[in-house]
Amino acid sequence: MIHTAGEVAEHLSAKILGDGHAPISGVANPESANAEDLIYADSPRQVERAAASAARCVLAIRGADLSGKTVLEVENPKLAFAKAAAWLLPRPPLRPEIHPTAIVAATARLAPNIRVGPYVVIEDEVEIGTGTAVDAFCFVGRDARLGENCWLHPRVTLYAGARLADRVEVHSGAVIGGDGFGYVFGDERHIKFPQIGSVEIGNDVEIGCNTTIDRGSLDATQIGTGVKIDNLVQVAHNVRIGRNTVVAAQVGISGSCTVGSQVLIGGQVGIAPHCTLEDDAIIGAQAGIPSNKTIRRGQTVWGTPARPFARFKEQYGWLSRLPELAERVRKLEEEKAVE
Amino acid sequence: MIHTAGEVAEHLSAKILGDGHAPISGVANPESANAEDLIYADSPRQVERAAASAARCVLAIRGADLSGKTVLEVENPKLAFAKAAAWLLPRPPLRPEIHPTAIVAATARLAPNIRVGPYVVIEDEVEIGTGTAVDAFCFVGRDARLGENCWLHPRVTLYAGARLADRVEVHSGAVIGGDGFGYVFGDERHIKFPQIGSVEIGNDVEIGCNTTIDRGSLDATQIGTGVKIDNLVQVAHNVRIGRNTVVAAQVGISGSCTVGSQVLIGGQVGIAPHCTLEDDAIIGAQAGIPSNKTIRRGQTVWGTPARPFARFKEQYGWLSRLPELAERVRKLEEEKAVE
Amino acid sequence: MIHTAGEVAEHLSAKILGDGHAPISGVANPESANAEDLIYADSPRQVERAAASAARCVLAIRGADLSGKTVLEVENPKLAFAKAAAWLLPRPPLRPEIHPTAIVAATARLAPNIRVGPYVVIEDEVEIGTGTAVDAFCFVGRDARLGENCWLHPRVTLYAGARLADRVEVHSGAVIGGDGFGYVFGDERHIKFPQIGSVEIGNDVEIGCNTTIDRGSLDATQIGTGVKIDNLVQVAHNVRIGRNTVVAAQVGISGSCTVGSQVLIGGQVGIAPHCTLEDDAIIGAQAGIPSNKTIRRGQTVWGTPARPFARFKEQYGWLSRLPELAERVRKLEEEKAVE
Repeated sequence: MIHTAGEVAEHLSAKILGDGHAPISGVANPESANAEDLIYADSPRQVERAAASAARCVLAIRGADLSGKTVLEVENPKLAFAKAAAWLLPRPPLRPEIHPTAIVAATARLAPNIRVGPYVVIEDEVEIGTGTAVDAFCFVGRDARLGENCWLHPRVTLYAGARLADRVEVHSGAVIGGDGFGYVFGDERHIKFPQIGSVEIGNDVEIGCNTTIDRGSLDATQIGTGVKIDNLVQVAHNVRIGRNTVVAAQVGISGSCTVGSQVLIGGQVGIAPHCTLEDDAIIGAQAGIPSNKTIRRGQTVWGTPARPFARFKEQYGWLSRLPELAERVRKLEEEKAVE
Repeated sequence: MIHTAGEVAEHLSAKILGDGHAPISGVANPESANAEDLIYADSPRQVERAAASAARCVLAIRGADLSGKTVLEVENPKLAFAKAAAWLLPRPPLRPEIHPTAIVAATARLAPNIRVGPYVVIEDEVEIGTGTAVDAFCFVGRDARLGENCWLHPRVTLYAGARLADRVEVHSGAVIGGDGFGYVFGDERHIKFPQIGSVEIGNDVEIGCNTTIDRGSLDATQIGTGVKIDNLVQVAHNVRIGRNTVVAAQVGISGSCTVGSQVLIGGQVGIAPHCTLEDDAIIGAQAGIPSNKTIRRGQTVWGTPARPFARFKEQYGWLSRLPELAERVRKLEEEKAVE
Repeated sequence: MIHTAGEVAEHLSAKILGDGHAPISGVANPESANAEDLIYADSPRQVERAAASAARCVLAIRGADLSGKTVLEVENPKLAFAKAAAWLLPRPPLRPEIHPTAIVAATARLAPNIRVGPYVVIEDEVEIGTGTAVDAFCFVGRDARLGENCWLHPRVTLYAGARLADRVEVHSGAVIGGDGFGYVFGDERHIKFPQIGSVEIGNDVEIGCNTTIDRGSLDATQIGTGVKIDNLVQVAHNVRIGRNTVVAAQVGISGSCTVGSQVLIGGQVGIAPHCTLEDDAIIGAQAGIPSNKTIRRGQTVWGTPARPFARFKEQYGWLSRLPELAERVRKLEEEKAVE
């Protein structure tokens, strides 16, 4: 469907300079855009790229030098671009269907307006809310609950009892509600600590491909509203994550950690058991946080073991100059010997 | 099913103080327990939590101050709790069934008392022992063997020829027997080194969600009895792991490593090719072990490259104080200049 | 099928010493070989192992002391072994079949000579070239394209629009074309940046088990010809990887990185967004490359943050001797105090 620059401006409450009738049919990067693609520019470098682009319409801050283009003036062009894209290219409307090959237990309670794809298995007592899509090869275990407008991409596993609130999107290969990893050693073998808790995923959560989120051992693993989790992440038993926290790929969060709201966790970070990350903390990529540690509100940490970024930078700066420092010590000793 | 405190005490050979007729129907944490849940206390802090709990029955060491509760005295309350949980909440008995949608090759040899779930594919010459459950969407490749009382959760892949002994539990998304990663560069391209060995998993092994265990290149990858492997772990070709070793999430064990018995490998550890980890070694989370390295029996190592824990602590302590040490050197130089 | 030493020598253009009629039916390691297995020896230690082996035929360099064996003289025994194995044990010929349980959209265009396994789902407008095998439980999303002689092992997901060229092999559990991980924060929530680009995989690429390769956000994620990717690797949106690059297990490559040709990336390496790795770079296992960094052509780097190997070695050598260096400084101070 084709919109006009004027319609997009209205949707974004943007001021428009130029041709409000210019058609907009998609979004793109400046270099690959055609005339009808919307692009954005939020830096001088981006403004240059936009100026050279075939695109006729640009989202930019006030005063950007883009003569010849239709400019939609906004405060945050990248944010406006994301919103415009969501509006221009909405998810296709769900076509309700229970595919004939889906195996749905008689005791499952499915809202009328859902899509269940081919070769889906839905076990007893499952509940699925309206507008939700469950794609091919998904397994929804006994007593699991999905709220409204969720989307399980193909090949997702929900173990028994997993709970997803509304608008949760789970990508292919993710596993939610697997057993936590806990044993007690006795009688010459590892005896499994009970892993019978639940897992509760809040509204508007997105979970990446092949990510694993374990059930709680006795209580619940909890993922808060608006949390975004990338691919191949491990979230262990009893972890609680607050609102809008972002977890990059391949992060591992060990058992019983508490992560606050709006925390940013970089790629491949490892968090040992029983840590607390307070709100707005920022954990640099590959950092390692030792057991029982607390990262304070708003603190940025790096390295293994993780320390405040300024300290990390200073210490690693000196590590780089260690050979030189050692040489200076050698010289002092030499002079001493000469005295 | 509801048991009594007396029955649980008898099962655990525990001494009981208080009401042997108190009903016990489940297990819980002190805070979420109701009166009929069994809880445990193995530290002063836990005894406090237990004292404040609604639970009537507590597993504790002798002498714990828990008046008003029914106390089951044991030496190791957490171990006893795990055993009690396994007894109170046993895995539901397997209901034998070959689901009509399962595709089972005519040459497969299935013991009578097994469960094969919906949309399972079992190829030629597969053998499955009695009491084993193969859940939805599992793929069991040609000539694979599963022993007795195994449990493949939904969506597990066994490549051709994989061998699982008895009581092996494999969680959703795990892949066992994929090709090892080995190439020889020649004629301007990577030519695959043969990856035709097998993979052999011992008794009582548990393998986490989305974990990958490759087949051997020419010989076998071997996982010993009682080994426990968490989620998203990579075990490469020709690795051999001894009895009761524990491997935390996201660990990577490279080709041809030999890992002993009762080794503990922390989360996100990386082990380069051809390493040897002797029995009872402990590898701290995120440690990196360089190629061909041996970690001695019982040694605890940390860091990358991994070194004995005491050395790691001392060196990283000095790394933290490097800015201060550099300042002391500067002062010595200054005084020298003044002389 | 059984070949003779002479036939193998001819296939490899190797000079043969000994019995050209010796039968060869397989390949093995020296210790597990039987008389008819071909083995190789490319070091004095390997020659010893070969001499003691039951195998009659050995691939070795000229002059190896292997009297009593039939020796096939080659320059690179390991390479010749890989080639011989591929020739002796070819992939079984594909038996064309569309399994009756496969669900294939009417608009999909399938070449005649392909195999589509049980419980495969192929959506609208998909194209599949001749000689390609799509095993059980694979999901091939709308408009995806597979070239000739590809092999999707069981349980692979291709999101809509993914493009695979010829002879691409994808192992079980891999997910290609999932949404990139990009959001813009506004109105108190994370708004998804459009993830509508494609993913393009070149010829002769192999992708490991449970690896995830995201689609581009606006343009394409591109994997070059001959690239080999191990298990549990994360390749983010807009990444471009050149020809013949090798990526070991559990590596994470963040958004918009450019990786050259013949790069070697060790296990668990993390590469932050917008990095450039030039051709022939070597990245040591577990290294971390900070955002926007360039690794120069042919450079070998280690550590986090990654630095040239020689510097890494020197700095970490001094880190090991830091306690001793600190002691030397203390002594200098003491002597100063005495003066």
